[in-house]
Amino acid sequence: MIKSFSALIAHLSEARNPKRLVVVYPHDEHSMEAVFMALREGWVKLLLVGDKDKMPLPADWEQYADCIEFEYAADAMEAARLSVKAVREGRANAMMKALVNTDVLLRAILNKEEGILPKGRVMSHIAVMEVPKLERFLLISDAAVLPYPTEEQRAAQIGYITEMCRRLQIETPRIAMLHCTENASEKFPHSMTYAPLIARAQQGEWGNLLLDGPLDLRCALDKEALDIKGIKSCLEGEADALLFPDIVGANAFYKTMPFFANAEIAGVLQGTDCPVVLSSRGDSVLTKYYSIAVALA
Amino acid sequence: MIKSFSALIAHLSEARNPKRLVVVYPHDEHSMEAVFMALREGWVKLLLVGDKDKMPLPADWEQYADCIEFEYAADAMEAARLSVKAVREGRANAMMKALVNTDVLLRAILNKEEGILPKGRVMSHIAVMEVPKLERFLLISDAAVLPYPTEEQRAAQIGYITEMCRRLQIETPRIAMLHCTENASEKFPHSMTYAPLIARAQQGEWGNLLLDGPLDLRCALDKEALDIKGIKSCLEGEADALLFPDIVGANAFYKTMPFFANAEIAGVLQGTDCPVVLSSRGDSVLTKYYSIAVALA
Repeated sequence: MIKSFSALIAHLSEARNPKRLVVVYPHDEHSMEAVFMALREGWVKLLLVGDKDKMPLPADWEQYADCIEFEYAADAMEAARLSVKAVREGRANAMMKALVNTDVLLRAILNKEEGILPKGRVMSHIAVMEVPKLERFLLISDAAVLPYPTEEQRAAQIGYITEMCRRLQIETPRIAMLHCTENASEKFPHSMTYAPLIARAQQGEWGNLLLDGPLDLRCALDKEALDIKGIKSCLEGEADALLFPDIVGANAFYKTMPFFANAEIAGVLQGTDCPVVLSSRGDSVLTKYYSIAVALA
Repeated sequence: MIKSFSALIAHLSEARNPKRLVVVYPHDEHSMEAVFMALREGWVKLLLVGDKDKMPLPADWEQYADCIEFEYAADAMEAARLSVKAVREGRANAMMKALVNTDVLLRAILNKEEGILPKGRVMSHIAVMEVPKLERFLLISDAAVLPYPTEEQRAAQIGYITEMCRRLQIETPRIAMLHCTENASEKFPHSMTYAPLIARAQQGEWGNLLLDGPLDLRCALDKEALDIKGIKSCLEGEADALLFPDIVGANAFYKTMPFFANAEIAGVLQGTDCPVVLSSRGDSVLTKYYSIAVALA
């Protein structure tokens, strides 16, 4: 079980099998810094799509020329299109957004003929947090893409979370479907989807995992709180992942944890043909760097 | 401006004008401990409703007999009814739930003939957190009562928050209406209520305050995040209060902060004829104690 970003990066380095990351328009220093951190440590190869002459390449870049491919794009929109094409052609294992607007990149990803979201697949976002208090990873979904997930979208999220947990060597992922109480009620439509999803989990739809809900956040993460409330949960207060009812609550938690609880955070899109790092201006270099690690895990 | 529970309690003590708290069925040690902490410090008088012979009174209680009234109730339901009656008759300034189920107490509070929620008033919950990182109070609403507030319910919440801020000597309360982005959209009905509420605030409906939204949690609390996103907000990243879109997100934040960010937390119901402390089994003695201070602030 991988419990920290440093352990994940050690694991990627030891594999000595660097995978290729396509970087969409790396014309900003933050993104360049993050990808070169990974490149220097030898766990990534790069496909940089944009105008090489205008990229803020670091002084030592030629030392790593063997591990870098360049592809010319005149602007961010073309870079998005060409990056998506590279993934479709199997020339990259993960994608990272750099100096391109999210909506421009998403349009290229979602393009019906040339995109990388197969028809009928659900696109969703997973954040992976390293939380000092828990001394392990905590995954959350979905702080960025799905507004109010339906039962089927939630089923897809459970699949993605399970997959990500396995890549982090969490053998039996514990997934909590959150609510404000432990009682489902028609007043809260999301809570009514939880029992059918648990039934599907028990029938083995996602393999080996523990799924429970509705649980409040505390009962998902704190055995003592469970005991005080006298509630039984197969997760035993040790959730690896929190599935939030909607994007609004997930987003608040996603922004609370780094600010108030010193969490380190990484995030990727799932459902696309490869994981996509959708970092934003506010993200630190470290967040971008960790997100690359999660995308290539 | 009062910035911590210890400062609030010092302020209450210095006033030398202890107010009366009615305690509904204090047959549990946690509640008794909390109310006696306040009693010994001289900033509260008590009306204890229940069966005196069965209450876990501390050994030194008779020293404080001058500040304690008892009223007999055979069971928790009768205690709820009599406590509500005491408030209606002006014999108590705040109420605290002890060993009585929330639904039993709420039924007494909401009773149309004999209750203490005037017709047409909105009942809502405010939590007051002392957050080490912020070095000031942070108020949030509503983690416990209103599921999906309407515009009118939100208007009431703004009024209650403003009132509570004034009692905490925050002269110009800064209230953030949260969302996952800074853009209102019909996909998220709550976000469409924010502009009309801001217009009402500007017309002076709630007096002197600063109200902004939609803001994400980070932009509400972190000036740096605002600057990076290039967003202007009259709150300048220094919100005193967060108004959550719904109970689900508010509840997750309410449970996250003490667990992950060492926040101390207190909570009261507003809208009723007096503030009501609705503590729960999971709350610490300290949370109950602080909640009494907030109810009597």
